[in-house]
Amino acid sequence: MSGALDGIRVLDFSNFIAGPYCAMLLGAMGAEVIRVEPPGGALDRDIGPYAPNGQAMYPWHYSCNKLGVTLDLKNAKAKGLLHKLLARTDVVLEAFSPGVKKKLGLDLRSLHAVNPAISLLSISGYGQYGPYAERGGLDTVAQGMAGLMAITGPEGGEPMRAGVAVVDYGAALYGLYGVMLALYQREKTGRGQAIDISLLDVAVSFMETVFAEMAVLGVERKAMGNRRPYTAPTNMFQAKDGYVYVSITTDLFWRRFCKVAGIDHLRDDPRFNSNRVRYKHQKELNQIAADWVGARTVEEVLGEMIPAGIAAGPVLTLPQVMADEHVSARNMILEMNYEGVGPVPIPGLAIKMSENPGQIDTPAPAVGQHNDYVYGELLSCTPEELAALAADGVI
Amino acid sequence: MSGALDGIRVLDFSNFIAGPYCAMLLGAMGAEVIRVEPPGGALDRDIGPYAPNGQAMYPWHYSCNKLGVTLDLKNAKAKGLLHKLLARTDVVLEAFSPGVKKKLGLDLRSLHAVNPAISLLSISGYGQYGPYAERGGLDTVAQGMAGLMAITGPEGGEPMRAGVAVVDYGAALYGLYGVMLALYQREKTGRGQAIDISLLDVAVSFMETVFAEMAVLGVERKAMGNRRPYTAPTNMFQAKDGYVYVSITTDLFWRRFCKVAGIDHLRDDPRFNSNRVRYKHQKELNQIAADWVGARTVEEVLGEMIPAGIAAGPVLTLPQVMADEHVSARNMILEMNYEGVGPVPIPGLAIKMSENPGQIDTPAPAVGQHNDYVYGELLSCTPEELAALAADGVI
Repeated sequence: MSGALDGIRVLDFSNFIAGPYCAMLLGAMGAEVIRVEPPGGALDRDIGPYAPNGQAMYPWHYSCNKLGVTLDLKNAKAKGLLHKLLARTDVVLEAFSPGVKKKLGLDLRSLHAVNPAISLLSISGYGQYGPYAERGGLDTVAQGMAGLMAITGPEGGEPMRAGVAVVDYGAALYGLYGVMLALYQREKTGRGQAIDISLLDVAVSFMETVFAEMAVLGVERKAMGNRRPYTAPTNMFQAKDGYVYVSITTDLFWRRFCKVAGIDHLRDDPRFNSNRVRYKHQKELNQIAADWVGARTVEEVLGEMIPAGIAAGPVLTLPQVMADEHVSARNMILEMNYEGVGPVPIPGLAIKMSENPGQIDTPAPAVGQHNDYVYGELLSCTPEELAALAADGVI
Repeated sequence: MSGALDGIRVLDFSNFIAGPYCAMLLGAMGAEVIRVEPPGGALDRDIGPYAPNGQAMYPWHYSCNKLGVTLDLKNAKAKGLLHKLLARTDVVLEAFSPGVKKKLGLDLRSLHAVNPAISLLSISGYGQYGPYAERGGLDTVAQGMAGLMAITGPEGGEPMRAGVAVVDYGAALYGLYGVMLALYQREKTGRGQAIDISLLDVAVSFMETVFAEMAVLGVERKAMGNRRPYTAPTNMFQAKDGYVYVSITTDLFWRRFCKVAGIDHLRDDPRFNSNRVRYKHQKELNQIAADWVGARTVEEVLGEMIPAGIAAGPVLTLPQVMADEHVSARNMILEMNYEGVGPVPIPGLAIKMSENPGQIDTPAPAVGQHNDYVYGELLSCTPEELAALAADGVI
């Protein structure tokens, strides 16, 4: 089946997680994504985890479905090659600071001077304008500055990060929306545009209704462990042989929970009989749920909760996730083969399209692996030209 | 300026966070989004936080930029109206279970029988197929089942959720990518398609390289508080008057950190002089950073770190986030006015487009607020027909 982005070419100058993940998902949907690295390799080839053969694992995941070329953007002799490439490009993805980007000729004005059909996706710590625009940013710094850390972790504890780079992922995904909006609009105008994604913006956008709570109710939300403030019972509970998460979010599910937990006598109790009162008695309700769960195994708990339609699930360890039959049925852990290492499991494609399903199916390139194809075949450089560029350290 | 999605009409049948947020962002980019609720109002109008006037705050945020109509999908008399609406619709967004969707006539086959140009975005707990497909799902349950909770929180502590619904946000954003891919492809084929997003898939997709670590290195990642496993120094550190987060991710920044922290004598120490060794001495390096930060105020720390280009930032409380000048310069906290309540702050639009910037600028509708416009003006129902539909409880 064809990809929805067949015929689209993307140049990916980014690094680490957010940009590379975004570019990989464009590749998964059919775009030809060319990762452009400095001749020595991108910085994410030097960050852990490291395989026994010394290779860094980030690109093994985040640079699948890409071609790999080298180009030293700081070398004046790179400009000719870059412009030839840009003439055939639809999307440029980069994560330089606004100032550096301009020096490298990758700002929108410079790109459009070569090819006005290009869209430019910039993912940076703080965005292309604003007082912090030139600062170096990072997923966890953004989590801290947006207040996400202030409301994560045990009650009364120190601020805590989410255990994965949720802001990087969010930035990648907002970036995809932006790229697609720009491509869609280009169908009408013929022109590309710039998309500015900032990690801090992304983290702030994830903050639910906490600012409204402060302004309207005068309540500053704090970390509350695994509870949520306005539903009950809602928590992680310890069963005999593991943890489960249970959340009762509507009156319908409250009534079902009462039946399952054998507390039908509390169903119509005025302290508990609606969403609007239940959360005020969260402590009591969570204790009831904790006692009920505590007397059972995970399997027993879920065996009663799930048929009742209640949102409940096991809190799994990583080996359990890898062994899960639903994760497997959804193809959510793939294996990429890397020479001398063997199969490397990575998360799969979390978007299932009926007509253009796409797939993550091509292992990440080695440094410069596709120089010959891209520069030779695509841009028609002669072997002599390529040899000269290599000798000059341009590629 | 025009929106990139001008002329696109979306029907939003969803609830709570993921679906409504996705639909709101389509509206922010110019689509006409019609939220379709049961005549009594959607379930998210009954969940906290609640304003003093009794209204629920979720829709105040997640249903901005939408029109609101009522329609009882379970009423047989609703079908005529639904089909008239679908004939003029580009995208349907729903969050029912696969079985319920079919009963309601909102599966792709039923939709395409009316209008083959429709794309159907389904966001559910477990997706449209697989052994758990009919289970009820939820953000935090997905966090638990994907292993995200297993690696969040203090070292040695219990599994912990991220403090906001990061999986719901992820699902909304993957959904936007899917909708845009479908609209882009429709330009060529004239036909819409189905997009299947599952909260569990999304959560698994956020798990970085942890599965690769297990398979290749035999290492099961665990919660490690605010550290990250492969960079150092990297942690949250306590200054005299607050917390800062600092992360040294490359050798360049290590050298700069040495200068700032006055430890140039350690710069070339073989224990510390590259990414590939530094993380093995994380404890020692984090202690050095903790001591240096601990002797200074937040402002003093950042006053030295930031000019050196180091990724460092304050870990802020929610009031500090709301007061931040950069958040403000990026328009990342907006105010929506609701009658009898006044201005309600909500997070702003985390995507800045140069040509079609879009905006979140219209407060959420009351239940059925746009019945007259949508059913009367758009679908040309007469006042008598509308009165009859209302009397029958259809709208």
